Amino acid sequence: MKFDRKPIPVTDAVAKVMEYERFGGWEEVAIDQCENRILAEGITASHPIPPFNKSPYDGFALKAEDTAEAGSDKPVTFRVIEQVGAGHQSSRAIEHGEAVRIMTGAEIPEGADCVAMFEICQTYEEDSMDYMTIKRQMEKGQNIIEKGSETSLGDVLVNKGTRINPGVKALLATFGYPTVKVGKKPVIGLFATGTELLDVDEELQPGKIRNSNAYMIAAQIERAGGHVKYYGKLEDDFDTCYQAVSRAFSEVDALITTGGVSVGDFDLMPDIYDKLGAEVLFNKIAMRPGSVTTVAEKDGKLLFGLSGNPSACYVGFELYAYPVIQRFAGVEKPYHRKIDAVLGKDFPKPNPFTRFVRGFIHYEDGKVLVSPAGMDKSAVVTTLANTDALIMLPGGTRGFKAGDAVQAILLEDPSGQAAFK
Amino acid sequence: MKFDRKPIPVTDAVAKVMEYERFGGWEEVAIDQCENRILAEGITASHPIPPFNKSPYDGFALKAEDTAEAGSDKPVTFRVIEQVGAGHQSSRAIEHGEAVRIMTGAEIPEGADCVAMFEICQTYEEDSMDYMTIKRQMEKGQNIIEKGSETSLGDVLVNKGTRINPGVKALLATFGYPTVKVGKKPVIGLFATGTELLDVDEELQPGKIRNSNAYMIAAQIERAGGHVKYYGKLEDDFDTCYQAVSRAFSEVDALITTGGVSVGDFDLMPDIYDKLGAEVLFNKIAMRPGSVTTVAEKDGKLLFGLSGNPSACYVGFELYAYPVIQRFAGVEKPYHRKIDAVLGKDFPKPNPFTRFVRGFIHYEDGKVLVSPAGMDKSAVVTTLANTDALIMLPGGTRGFKAGDAVQAILLEDPSGQAAFK
Repeated sequence: MKFDRKPIPVTDAVAKVMEYERFGGWEEVAIDQCENRILAEGITASHPIPPFNKSPYDGFALKAEDTAEAGSDKPVTFRVIEQVGAGHQSSRAIEHGEAVRIMTGAEIPEGADCVAMFEICQTYEEDSMDYMTIKRQMEKGQNIIEKGSETSLGDVLVNKGTRINPGVKALLATFGYPTVKVGKKPVIGLFATGTELLDVDEELQPGKIRNSNAYMIAAQIERAGGHVKYYGKLEDDFDTCYQAVSRAFSEVDALITTGGVSVGDFDLMPDIYDKLGAEVLFNKIAMRPGSVTTVAEKDGKLLFGLSGNPSACYVGFELYAYPVIQRFAGVEKPYHRKIDAVLGKDFPKPNPFTRFVRGFIHYEDGKVLVSPAGMDKSAVVTTLANTDALIMLPGGTRGFKAGDAVQAILLEDPSGQAAFK
Repeated sequence: MKFDRKPIPVTDAVAKVMEYERFGGWEEVAIDQCENRILAEGITASHPIPPFNKSPYDGFALKAEDTAEAGSDKPVTFRVIEQVGAGHQSSRAIEHGEAVRIMTGAEIPEGADCVAMFEICQTYEEDSMDYMTIKRQMEKGQNIIEKGSETSLGDVLVNKGTRINPGVKALLATFGYPTVKVGKKPVIGLFATGTELLDVDEELQPGKIRNSNAYMIAAQIERAGGHVKYYGKLEDDFDTCYQAVSRAFSEVDALITTGGVSVGDFDLMPDIYDKLGAEVLFNKIAMRPGSVTTVAEKDGKLLFGLSGNPSACYVGFELYAYPVIQRFAGVEKPYHRKIDAVLGKDFPKPNPFTRFVRGFIHYEDGKVLVSPAGMDKSAVVTTLANTDALIMLPGGTRGFKAGDAVQAILLEDPSGQAAFK
């Protein structure tokens, strides 16, 4: 048994893990399969937007100077030479005294320099010819959306490393990407350990509980942008365990185990790391819950030994595995967004170590509050259902009061941040 | 042409649409396929948590009263009768003077009422028997997590209508749900209209633009929890259009079209609604962008006629289609969360109508700010990439200044709210 572990600060632990972060390379996916994936290349405007001068309204395109004499009692008359719908072009340039009936989104005919809206024009027909009169003066450029006024050719619109949301997808479509290069999802292997664990479809038995960590972590891996490969439960026998872990490790981009990293007699993971020849980056962190979280590295690949305790497991994943998965997938800002918030409820329990309390975000009159999601007993699984943030309470001798300034780590906000600070 | 449309307020429009909201029924999915789906039934504790008295530490289980005489110079000795790991049970109840070596998570043996941590105990062996001495007095109940202390049998833990996050998944596993009843995803049909639209893989042509709305809306439908059925572009010909819309409408739970709802000569949707026998709930809303957003209903099924303008289309979807999709899928709080926030940047342009400005949320010193994501020209597609909120600016004669209190609609926050207000 190894009682002599030295706890390291959370920021040091994160830094040690991130020494081994790497980008997993890209793959090409169809535009209709790319939601929430990460752009492996930025999007540059391959044409101006709009690509031509266009009309924002239904109306008549004409030369503004032709309306110079118009007034409320002096209508000016134009001959309507044709009609242009969106997607079409006029057949020729317009001359003085001519107008083109134009639809929203259609290209402004050559020679025209303004659009008079339908509503201010009168139309009539005479000798099978269409005419239009207007009693107002128009200005050059009026009601014309100029070519390139929204985006110029060559503008960088979205950087690589950006998550694809509906807006980014609209850009991809606009600039003609039927397929798009996105970061590959890392394959994350997952083992649960613990003789006490039953499968989800087994009846409860004396002394045993169902394995909830594996399903929880699998969901966290998916949420982080990884692909889960679940290897099931590790047996108690060391050799069997070692073989299973060793084989799995060769098949994945990173491996997560839950349980077995403590100092108990049945905690096999430390010896497995030894035999694998993996370097243990740390095996004790100055935090609660999750102090026994262990991370090891072999050939640049990471093994995350998360605690068997549900809360500790949850927190350990979000702090140490999440940013590695994000970076692998190509995210530019791999860390959870951390914000200054107002504590919404007393948390009277002092703690010598940094504590990550499961909480939820709420808003009030322009303020952002974070409140504990429930009692923070380290084994309480029920609280996690309401959790969308971790309240980061620094260690010390005092508790915290509602209204105190605290930091909150946002677990469901995809914006992220570039550094863990 | 119908110029005589009467604009209705946004809240009225939402209310009219939601008269036709309905739950789409449930289906059973495997626990490892249920991420982000909506619980069709609440989760009730089918056993207490923990299901038995258990040890939070590695240590020795014993009777506290047996340590009554212990002191720093008065060690009390126990005979260690066996060892119990997590998932196992002791073979018999302990008697006075006896202790059981117990591991974290293991069931407390009958007869024991406290656990002394390893670190405060001395062990030795004599005549092939194991002994343990302790110099401290223990209290009854010390270091025991009592059966049911986290959750009692029958506790309602999560309500139906809740989105399944990693924490909810842990609960499902804990209480033995290999499959789970979730709300069905609505099938949302999608058409784009507009002769000016090119497909994403076509070369740009004079007067034309690529169809970005369809891809954007498809992504919005997926984000809202719907399943997209894309029917492609509608032709210009009325009869062909009518046939296509009519057939599609019979195959989906709701139908979305983009474009064709304006008052232009080529806007066919109003006549299609007529011929379908659909009742138009409204065709003009007192809002910008998106004033021409039209919603019609037939046999309790909805047709959303969104504007062809990208921003108007985006906003129209999030305000009117999103809550319908959420409710169909079983979400209890179907509306986007709307919060009081602080405007982060001037928005000087006054507007007579309620304006929904695309923006993004940021945080500063416990305050929640929302800033415009870019210029809010109604056709600017590039801004949408940075958008995760809509800033709701009431109509009036003045602009808005940084620091003003405004409302923000959160587009990527899954919490939701029960009413649109």
